[in-house]
Amino acid sequence: MADALRIGIAGLGTVGASLARILTSRHNKLADICGRPIDIVAVSARDPGKDRGVDLSGAQFYDDPVALARDAEIDVFVELIGGEGDPALSSVRSALERGCHAVTANKALLARHGVELAGIAEERGVLLNFEAAVAGGIPVIKAMRESLTGNSISRVFGILNGTCNYILTEMERAGLSFEDCLKEAQRLGYAEADPTFDVEGNDTAHKLALLTSIAFGTRIAPDDIYLEGISNISIEDIRAADDLGFRIKLLGVAQRTDSGIEQRVHPTMVPKNSVIAQVDGVTNAVAIDADVLGELMMSGPGAGGDATASAVMGDIADIAKSRPGHQHGPVLGRPAAHLDPYVRARMRSHEGGYFIRLTVEDKTGVFASLARHMSDNGISLESIVQRSTQNGNGDKKTVILVTHATMEASVRQAVDSISSDGYLLDKPQVIRIERPGN
Amino acid sequence: MADALRIGIAGLGTVGASLARILTSRHNKLADICGRPIDIVAVSARDPGKDRGVDLSGAQFYDDPVALARDAEIDVFVELIGGEGDPALSSVRSALERGCHAVTANKALLARHGVELAGIAEERGVLLNFEAAVAGGIPVIKAMRESLTGNSISRVFGILNGTCNYILTEMERAGLSFEDCLKEAQRLGYAEADPTFDVEGNDTAHKLALLTSIAFGTRIAPDDIYLEGISNISIEDIRAADDLGFRIKLLGVAQRTDSGIEQRVHPTMVPKNSVIAQVDGVTNAVAIDADVLGELMMSGPGAGGDATASAVMGDIADIAKSRPGHQHGPVLGRPAAHLDPYVRARMRSHEGGYFIRLTVEDKTGVFASLARHMSDNGISLESIVQRSTQNGNGDKKTVILVTHATMEASVRQAVDSISSDGYLLDKPQVIRIERPGN
Repeated sequence: MADALRIGIAGLGTVGASLARILTSRHNKLADICGRPIDIVAVSARDPGKDRGVDLSGAQFYDDPVALARDAEIDVFVELIGGEGDPALSSVRSALERGCHAVTANKALLARHGVELAGIAEERGVLLNFEAAVAGGIPVIKAMRESLTGNSISRVFGILNGTCNYILTEMERAGLSFEDCLKEAQRLGYAEADPTFDVEGNDTAHKLALLTSIAFGTRIAPDDIYLEGISNISIEDIRAADDLGFRIKLLGVAQRTDSGIEQRVHPTMVPKNSVIAQVDGVTNAVAIDADVLGELMMSGPGAGGDATASAVMGDIADIAKSRPGHQHGPVLGRPAAHLDPYVRARMRSHEGGYFIRLTVEDKTGVFASLARHMSDNGISLESIVQRSTQNGNGDKKTVILVTHATMEASVRQAVDSISSDGYLLDKPQVIRIERPGN
Repeated sequence: MADALRIGIAGLGTVGASLARILTSRHNKLADICGRPIDIVAVSARDPGKDRGVDLSGAQFYDDPVALARDAEIDVFVELIGGEGDPALSSVRSALERGCHAVTANKALLARHGVELAGIAEERGVLLNFEAAVAGGIPVIKAMRESLTGNSISRVFGILNGTCNYILTEMERAGLSFEDCLKEAQRLGYAEADPTFDVEGNDTAHKLALLTSIAFGTRIAPDDIYLEGISNISIEDIRAADDLGFRIKLLGVAQRTDSGIEQRVHPTMVPKNSVIAQVDGVTNAVAIDADVLGELMMSGPGAGGDATASAVMGDIADIAKSRPGHQHGPVLGRPAAHLDPYVRARMRSHEGGYFIRLTVEDKTGVFASLARHMSDNGISLESIVQRSTQNGNGDKKTVILVTHATMEASVRQAVDSISSDGYLLDKPQVIRIERPGN
């Protein structure tokens, strides 16, 4: 059997501790599969003495992860610190620069510095693996980077944030408000005390930026993403979606168009009979439209210590199975030096159409006015549903419009014109519809 | 850039032709991704002159695929001939024995000879890739063999045959019989003139045998699979399933139990709100229960020239990205020499329970008799539904029983006892229920 693969783990939180337990408890089985043992020889953590259910006394302890990355006698540096800046950035950079492989679960770091780090890895002929950075344990990076090599990808979209999907699922299941479901998610540990980063879509955006780069061979553009979170979704929206045969999911969508790339994160209506509509709770899912293959869909646990550690373990095993000195496939699917520049798509018609929910006065002429404003803005309607409001107040009506493919700007302008007429009794709601291939 | 990877393709049917078109039309892009060009230098086919929409005049033509595998100056032998025997077997064996990598889409070959061929590949230090052999373009082999390396898998199940799934989907959608939907599938090219191999489950069994081996690290056992096809499924079963909140899918299921491995292929009730229940038409899907990760589900095109070629292309790209002389991960996930023997599980209780549909005389005492026979055989019932038959004949009733977890043998015995009472007016139907994690 070949020499052991020596790894250093920076960060022993839930993911790091789970990874250490896998590497220790399955040491022999992994050695058999990988053709050599995988040994944890160095670790760094904030609290060295904490009981993590695993004996790490054989590993050298570092206070400073950057020192570990720079000095430890390791073959693979595993970064589980988090955050887009230091010490995560400096430690990964140091490891790669001295010819160490690196594995990271850090989406923020890669969204910001992925191209630079990929360039260093490729120059040094080492691997930078990051399966755990997107959709947790779902092997979507490997599928796009390796399995779909012969394909040209036109769209990738998914449920990339378990917190949001849990909240939306609970709103539908229990009929509770966003606020109540968020509280429950916090109680269960599915949401942070400050949930902004999750519920406003930033976390999804980081992951989407990485998927976009690999899907289309472009440089990573984390700041060019249309962002809309789920905090404005009401129980009325969920019910109206249900009536129309849709569910609401927070999707990250990246699409290639003739004029460039479109990246957006927003609440989305998906047909109830689509596979992605059945993805409930904290589960994540990614769908990829590829020209040769067709639509590939993957779903599974998107977060949590074990699911993330499973993906990190797969990344380490890939390195263990390879041998030093052999060249590897490019980190982002295409060599970092050859990535195309990112070009933002021009405004265009949204193929899936829009759902528009309006609360209006129940009086003569309102309906005609709505229809006229839609028509004036060139919007063709698939359906109009008029419903009494739930409190039974006869002066109020809810009107739901579903449009065919149309421009976002047209929808906004039509809704503004309707607002100016003074009939609206509540804030209008506009939600995009997305139609998966299956 | 490194030397070209020279490939030889044996078999230029729909898959081979699609692969040749991808390799030719995307030659430069593939070279950039893989770090070297991939050139088709040799081919063999029954009809050399046929127009396949691709210029292969630069490749050397062989009449005999075994001669190609043995003599051509190639780095990778791609077997797209099909069939478990020769020439597929001899050609793959010859290629591996002389240190050529091999890629195949041939499930029958691997189900029968996979362990032997994996052993040769590992001895010679070359790759034997076969992503296309199971579930077409879905990268399930890669996911299990690489991404889930740190996991212990307890169950893998899936919709592995597009023909059957198309027929079952159409029966439900159009309300037509099995025979009518089969004819339609044949007209559309989704089913062969002799559909036996697909509709009786043999094709699913071959694929399942490979998944089982990789999932559990056991030798391949294609002959130890309980087999039941879909030709006995009636429109009444589909409707009853629908009423109870289920859909019927032909699943291949492999499960690890305390006493060994259970492999079975049969029509299965799955809850309508599960992800796998939404997988319609010719689409395939595989779900994997892994101890660290949880449940991973993948769905996508399971057959067809392009989807299969996409998977073969991914396998070739993996070889192109690696460098000669470096050792690779084991073909079946664990070294062929270390695979555990296959041990069949002892009979045990089926966790998901059973659906039993009986057509009985509508007279006093029948219901009590049914209930007694169930109870006598230790079967506990989750629900009993009694319905009039559709033709409105007052003397006939349909009774549907859904059991809790119970033994197959108990169910068969109870149904036999009921039959002996002489109340049954039609053949009883028994269908297993499977409950996915999501």
